[in-house]
Amino acid sequence: MTNANAQELAAIEAAVVNYLTSFVRMDGDAVVGCYTDDGVLMAPGRPATVGKANLGEVYQAVWDVVTFDMKYTVHEVLQTSEDWGLVRSSTEGTETINASGEVIPARYQELFVMRKEAGKWLMARYCTCKID
Amino acid sequence: MTNANAQELAAIEAAVVNYLTSFVRMDGDAVVGCYTDDGVLMAPGRPATVGKANLGEVYQAVWDVVTFDMKYTVHEVLQTSEDWGLVRSSTEGTETINASGEVIPARYQELFVMRKEAGKWLMARYCTCKID
Repeated sequence: MTNANAQELAAIEAAVVNYLTSFVRMDGDAVVGCYTDDGVLMAPGRPATVGKANLGEVYQAVWDVVTFDMKYTVHEVLQTSEDWGLVRSSTEGTETINASGEVIPARYQELFVMRKEAGKWLMARYCTCKID
Repeated sequence: MTNANAQELAAIEAAVVNYLTSFVRMDGDAVVGCYTDDGVLMAPGRPATVGKANLGEVYQAVWDVVTFDMKYTVHEVLQTSEDWGLVRSSTEGTETINASGEVIPARYQELFVMRKEAGKWLMARYCTCKID
């Protein structure tokens, strides 16, 4: 692997870590800023959200109901072309149901398709599912 | 779009349709044959299954519990490089719990990262989550 490759892989991973940590912080602007303009979110419980313009509202709707305290593990980072890559990760921690205060253990896994735009790696397509 | 592009997109979509229909038919050999050797399945209820060698057992474990009757819709097909592409789809239908016979409406969505190997488009990474 060349240094250029290693730098790109590090940048791809950093972009995903920025998303995962911004999500737990419930930082809507940071989370939405992780996506391309045509970015797509596919998460349990709702149809795909297509386009950056719609993402902020959807994330806020999730955070209105649940507070997440999750730690991430990155399992794989690949660059598949000059401006495309992918990342697989999993997250493990707790969900607190805001209305009741109930705390539930939770594990998810994530597949990110990343695209480089204007020198920045962004989330182009993202799908996550619950492990348990 | 050139004809070559159109042909590749059609081949990518056909590979995904072959998977989705083989899954409903519970055809384990066909399903596993849709994956690359290092293919990864990320589905609700279990950690990622990594590598074609482990996939057959996991699919059979799912089919032992549930029989699916699902129709698919392909929402997007992209070729991101000569030998990589992606597909978004959703599926809607019913799940029958084999033990009880109970029939439950079900909707899922799917994100496929496809790779071309020896002229054939295969599933390299696949994540699905339940819409409801």
